[in-house]
Amino acid sequence: MIMRNDHAEKGNAVPERLAKVVIVGAGFGGLEAAKTLRRAPLEVTLIDRQNFHCFQPLLYQVATAALSPADIAWPIRYILRTQDNVTVLMAEVNGVNTQAKQVHTSLGDIGYDYLILATGARHSYFGRDGWEAWAPGLKRIEDATRIRRNILIAFERAEGTTDPAERERLLSFVVIGGGATGVEMAGAIAEVARQTLAADFRRIDPRSARIILIEAGPRLLPTFPPRLSRYAEAALRRAGVEVIIGTRVTNCDARGVDTDNGRIDAGTVIWAAGVTASHAARWLGAQADGAGRVKVAADLSVPHHPDIFVIGDTAAVVDHRGRPVPPTAQPAKQMGRYVARSIIARATGRPRQAPFRYRHLGDLATIGRRAAVVKLGWLELTGFLGWLFWSMAHIYFLIGLRHRFIVAFIWLWDYITFQRGARLITDAAADPPPGSGKP
Amino acid sequence: MIMRNDHAEKGNAVPERLAKVVIVGAGFGGLEAAKTLRRAPLEVTLIDRQNFHCFQPLLYQVATAALSPADIAWPIRYILRTQDNVTVLMAEVNGVNTQAKQVHTSLGDIGYDYLILATGARHSYFGRDGWEAWAPGLKRIEDATRIRRNILIAFERAEGTTDPAERERLLSFVVIGGGATGVEMAGAIAEVARQTLAADFRRIDPRSARIILIEAGPRLLPTFPPRLSRYAEAALRRAGVEVIIGTRVTNCDARGVDTDNGRIDAGTVIWAAGVTASHAARWLGAQADGAGRVKVAADLSVPHHPDIFVIGDTAAVVDHRGRPVPPTAQPAKQMGRYVARSIIARATGRPRQAPFRYRHLGDLATIGRRAAVVKLGWLELTGFLGWLFWSMAHIYFLIGLRHRFIVAFIWLWDYITFQRGARLITDAAADPPPGSGKP
Repeated sequence: MIMRNDHAEKGNAVPERLAKVVIVGAGFGGLEAAKTLRRAPLEVTLIDRQNFHCFQPLLYQVATAALSPADIAWPIRYILRTQDNVTVLMAEVNGVNTQAKQVHTSLGDIGYDYLILATGARHSYFGRDGWEAWAPGLKRIEDATRIRRNILIAFERAEGTTDPAERERLLSFVVIGGGATGVEMAGAIAEVARQTLAADFRRIDPRSARIILIEAGPRLLPTFPPRLSRYAEAALRRAGVEVIIGTRVTNCDARGVDTDNGRIDAGTVIWAAGVTASHAARWLGAQADGAGRVKVAADLSVPHHPDIFVIGDTAAVVDHRGRPVPPTAQPAKQMGRYVARSIIARATGRPRQAPFRYRHLGDLATIGRRAAVVKLGWLELTGFLGWLFWSMAHIYFLIGLRHRFIVAFIWLWDYITFQRGARLITDAAADPPPGSGKP
Repeated sequence: MIMRNDHAEKGNAVPERLAKVVIVGAGFGGLEAAKTLRRAPLEVTLIDRQNFHCFQPLLYQVATAALSPADIAWPIRYILRTQDNVTVLMAEVNGVNTQAKQVHTSLGDIGYDYLILATGARHSYFGRDGWEAWAPGLKRIEDATRIRRNILIAFERAEGTTDPAERERLLSFVVIGGGATGVEMAGAIAEVARQTLAADFRRIDPRSARIILIEAGPRLLPTFPPRLSRYAEAALRRAGVEVIIGTRVTNCDARGVDTDNGRIDAGTVIWAAGVTASHAARWLGAQADGAGRVKVAADLSVPHHPDIFVIGDTAAVVDHRGRPVPPTAQPAKQMGRYVARSIIARATGRPRQAPFRYRHLGDLATIGRRAAVVKLGWLELTGFLGWLFWSMAHIYFLIGLRHRFIVAFIWLWDYITFQRGARLITDAAADPPPGSGKP
């Protein structure tokens, strides 16, 4: 028989002490969990080290100057302002005491009855962390504005130098990793060089820039059907991207990359090759897979810690065919919803849910202007139709009419004019001085 | 008699070597000068240390999270992309060799026949430069995002602390200086606290925040008629701002300010009290006034250097009544246009222009939602009508339909919803950890 909590069942009788739920991380998973707890008789605390939720799938558009950070980010407090049972705290979490049931944060210890860790992932350099200085990855708003600065400064320095070899190096852009992020970045940089900046310079021709996409595996977009991978590769080549398949990067430095097929000098290198989970496994002393993800139970709880759940990019989860669930927004949201419902069920004495089951909705990636690949069940779209679908899907998933309207307007405007409105080099003081050549 | 250059007069005969014009600074003055030289038979180089032109009158809206940096900035190259006689360089200028007629830049020396220095101004702490760490001013995009971060973090920390005195301090915002920038900042912060954030927190009531505007002189907005100053003060008070007149700040530190009327503890202090000109006078060894502005001749050239012009906030210019020309966009643009025409006249052997004469078009300042003061000749507007005029005038002066449309949409949206969409705390890693109290 299932135990029932009479207080909660009666609805308006308030239990003496509400169970405390702490959620760490306000990405897709953590935010969805908080929203799902909306009307639950629980005291929810959502902790993130930033004050905003970022729509990561469009980060590459900030990195390539199409959108502004605020176009793809929302204050977490604002999203949850009407949800009275949630307190949002901006704090850094640096550990969990599973005995005392407390989370250690920069604001002090916070007790929990149920804990959801949704702390995401960072890019991983396969143990070569020194590469990060030369090949930044793209996970946070700050990463995106840094990459935007790198790309735009490369063109400025190329205009400022008189050394032809240096100019050629500065106008070479290397993207490492042929998954969705790498494909989208390479396509967008090609658009910036061939279209947006085409008329802006006097001494260089931005259209002569080399954009090189390097993938270690046998094809781009390995999670898509091979036909769509071939389409993406052809579309990138048409857009002016050099696609190098089956080639491994062996070193990154200040002036380019080494591969097992030779050296490529470059002014800008972008890392889209691998991610590693956040420190949740270490905080819990839990078993992790090779990418640092916590091996969770069928209900996404941590073995031996039934009150702690790990979701999103930090969790190692397989689907019903035994394949790993991808580190993307859809599974994170599904997991967030699932664990929130589990907690409600347990707190209110309702029956437990069936084990978590991931429903794969589809894969999307865009290659730039008028080209995208879409795989939704039996449906495969490419070209303009794919691009239109991709655009509408992303606008749909933005939060609130305001952002939807602004992003739709910017995309439409930029589509017609070939422009990108956010081409600002800010905080340039943080960078080394622009070149040393004489004009 | 006036000398004439026959080559230029004939129109299609090209002189052997085009005269070189170097413009330093792409603010309102420098940009207007470059645009005015559009069809002139001259070789123009426009140098700025940033890659964008910033619409400074709306910087306070970036600082208070209403607009994004890209909404009020345009790549300089983009603005001038169709103007073939202009080369834009992103470089730092650090001196002028008036003998050799060269500008020293981070890209090497650049020769000129005519030089326009439009290098603007920075905020000035009257010799107390150490105050800048605690009381940042508002001149650049980076200043605005820094102030935005300070304001938003103050609310976050107030939510995170349990010490009532510390909470009260964090919720106190001091703006020093009652000119247009100070009035606009104070009004906007009051709006953020009383409206935008009103529902976002659980432990603090943002509406209880103190916003304190301190002016050393006898009234706010000293360049406006006294009636409008009184209106502005009353409107600010209605919006919840404490206005302190005739009070001087004697010290700024990490926890607030001292005034000659006592101590004010504060979590955020913003400096809008004074500016000092850029280093142009020092570069030229020219005479400067107390604020570092170059004392220019009637044609805005530098005495003993007829080929060097100084314009905008860097020039000390008086109007026909002997009053100093204000350091704002309108005079800078008028000066830019004037010196560009002077250079065209000299380079093409046309008659010299009459001395520069500043035409004052008017003064505008907004106090927040539905209140502004406008003085245009005999016309004085306040309240909603003033606010409407202020909004339309600023949208009109933005560059390009894209920015006008986006800013108009955001203002309309935020007016209806009381929201501000750019409430992002970025680069928070650069700040000290948020508080040390326990929740």
